[in-house]
Amino acid sequence: MFKYEIISTQGRARAGVFSTPHGNLETPVFAPVGTQATVKTLTPAQLEELGASLILSNTYHLYLRPGDELVRELGGLHKFMQWSGPMLTDSGGYQVFSLAQTRKIDDEGVIFKSHIDGSTHRFTPEKSIQIQEDLGADIIMTFDECSDPNEAAYSEIAMERTHRWAERCLIAKTRVDQALFGIIQGGVNPALRTASAQFISSLPFHGIAIGGLSVGESKAEMHSTLELVTPLLPENKPRYLMGVGTPEDLINGVARGIDIFDCVLPTRLARHNAAFSPEGRLNLMNATFARDPRPIDESCDCYTCKTFTRAYLRHLVVARELLAGTLLSIHNLHALIQLVKNIRISILNGTFESKVPAWLTQWQGNAEREPKQV
Amino acid sequence: MFKYEIISTQGRARAGVFSTPHGNLETPVFAPVGTQATVKTLTPAQLEELGASLILSNTYHLYLRPGDELVRELGGLHKFMQWSGPMLTDSGGYQVFSLAQTRKIDDEGVIFKSHIDGSTHRFTPEKSIQIQEDLGADIIMTFDECSDPNEAAYSEIAMERTHRWAERCLIAKTRVDQALFGIIQGGVNPALRTASAQFISSLPFHGIAIGGLSVGESKAEMHSTLELVTPLLPENKPRYLMGVGTPEDLINGVARGIDIFDCVLPTRLARHNAAFSPEGRLNLMNATFARDPRPIDESCDCYTCKTFTRAYLRHLVVARELLAGTLLSIHNLHALIQLVKNIRISILNGTFESKVPAWLTQWQGNAEREPKQV
Repeated sequence: MFKYEIISTQGRARAGVFSTPHGNLETPVFAPVGTQATVKTLTPAQLEELGASLILSNTYHLYLRPGDELVRELGGLHKFMQWSGPMLTDSGGYQVFSLAQTRKIDDEGVIFKSHIDGSTHRFTPEKSIQIQEDLGADIIMTFDECSDPNEAAYSEIAMERTHRWAERCLIAKTRVDQALFGIIQGGVNPALRTASAQFISSLPFHGIAIGGLSVGESKAEMHSTLELVTPLLPENKPRYLMGVGTPEDLINGVARGIDIFDCVLPTRLARHNAAFSPEGRLNLMNATFARDPRPIDESCDCYTCKTFTRAYLRHLVVARELLAGTLLSIHNLHALIQLVKNIRISILNGTFESKVPAWLTQWQGNAEREPKQV
Repeated sequence: MFKYEIISTQGRARAGVFSTPHGNLETPVFAPVGTQATVKTLTPAQLEELGASLILSNTYHLYLRPGDELVRELGGLHKFMQWSGPMLTDSGGYQVFSLAQTRKIDDEGVIFKSHIDGSTHRFTPEKSIQIQEDLGADIIMTFDECSDPNEAAYSEIAMERTHRWAERCLIAKTRVDQALFGIIQGGVNPALRTASAQFISSLPFHGIAIGGLSVGESKAEMHSTLELVTPLLPENKPRYLMGVGTPEDLINGVARGIDIFDCVLPTRLARHNAAFSPEGRLNLMNATFARDPRPIDESCDCYTCKTFTRAYLRHLVVARELLAGTLLSIHNLHALIQLVKNIRISILNGTFESKVPAWLTQWQGNAEREPKQV
């Protein structure tokens, strides 16, 4: 179980297969995010049809609602949400720091108030592992502290705490049918990132995640951090860049040795009426599309592009019809999943490096991380 | 085109086939409502999978947004919303009276203000037909005036106007690939209903609709009106009971000679967290379902019931996840469509009348017309 086999490489880019209890995961891979045990607006049948293989869900959210014990009682997260392929849960660390209120951090863990009802809770590394064992995903994550890249002084404290917590997570883990990934922190400080990469690599994790990126640093900082870190990592473990990203982030990430990505961007953009396209990010609310008989992307073979015109999608958006979010989510997820699948094929047949410039040009209008306000 | 063949009858119940340019429609049939050129939350692929055959869309809404000329320019409603089977548009009459503001009615037509932006518009019988010809559904309706069943004095005026408008619609119609159905009005007044049934039956419509029911009258009044009206109608034309209904309304309607039904109830209930079931209408918000591992209805073979537990559906409802509306819409629509399909089978094999009592018992907890507030 959890064998990671690298099939082909080109430069730092890798194509591999990670074996999990719910099937083999072909890497590189982009994972849709199902925060509350649902990839927003989509059925599992639609996710399967659009080519999803790995699904991520959020420990913080599921702990608060419906509760991890309830999910365990109903057979675990796979059965609960009816996703039969590989799944990953995060540790709750990032959400505690970004969503919860009135948090108090010490070396033991974090006390926070629920964003739902203000109730007080405590996460520790041990608690995070226990919740993730209740949920039962194939890949689980260590409890970490993500520091603001602009607070350099704090990065070292957060990194050191993340390391101690990583060790405690390894000790706390009891299930053998879950792969535990360690998380590298250190902000945008090269010395800290180097130390963190070396420390996390020294521990017996099944995979290595890079946290604390795509949280406000520049693209150049993200790239230089990846270029620094990935050569320090063991070759035979999958590498996961958390919370990334845009089409160009995926291309740049694979080129720098990343195997696994996840991001809410495709589904969040969809709910803000935006679609990835080679013409740049389209805002379907735009009157330009009112009578446009073309699909979002004529080269795309997702259900939305094979079936509907921009004019119809614009009508749904303007009329505030929920189907708009579904159809745009299908397209945006398909676009990223298919991009990464094509990247994988190009690594296998040795054409990745020659294709990178064209891909970056093709997707350059889709680089922003946040939806525009409409 | 538009041949209606009755294959089997039992009592007043009829099983038939209505041929349309977009395929044969097996009757009796329940039509999901796609008000704004979308059955809310569902893709056409999901509608097809759950067994939908006829889809209704609303002339009033599509005229205002995106506009019937735009739909025509994009190839008509079938192509616009990508429904390849039979479609029906209403005339806009009911919506003008129920949704629009500051309306002024005279024999020529109705002046009203849009519920979207307050702009002023005029519908006449001729305008309604022109819009419906732009939209291009297989079945279109005469422009009618629906009177409040509690305003008996007004029912005759509205009925007489409906009759004059019906004649004008016949004259205005130009497309030969659309079936025009006349609408019977007359409130709950037997004399008016008799006169209206006889008058509308005397005109060369492709089908006959019964309007002005399920608008506030009692169930007994609905039944007695149907019992009075259907024997007065030509045998060889399909009969459409507009805006109905609940499971028991469908059973009772078929037993009284109705062939076609439509109602927003299944999808509206879904968005109010409610599901049809033999146990009565379930409110999935209810804490009772928090750990319930059963499907909504163990005897149902819809995607939702084959796939998900009540516990998961409750989680989606509580977490305000949009997928809840999709999954409950699939179930509720499937329940009514399948009920009517089973009714059709029972008419074909001569068991309808013997099955009616059990069906009425099975569905008796689902009789209310409006979602409960939650």
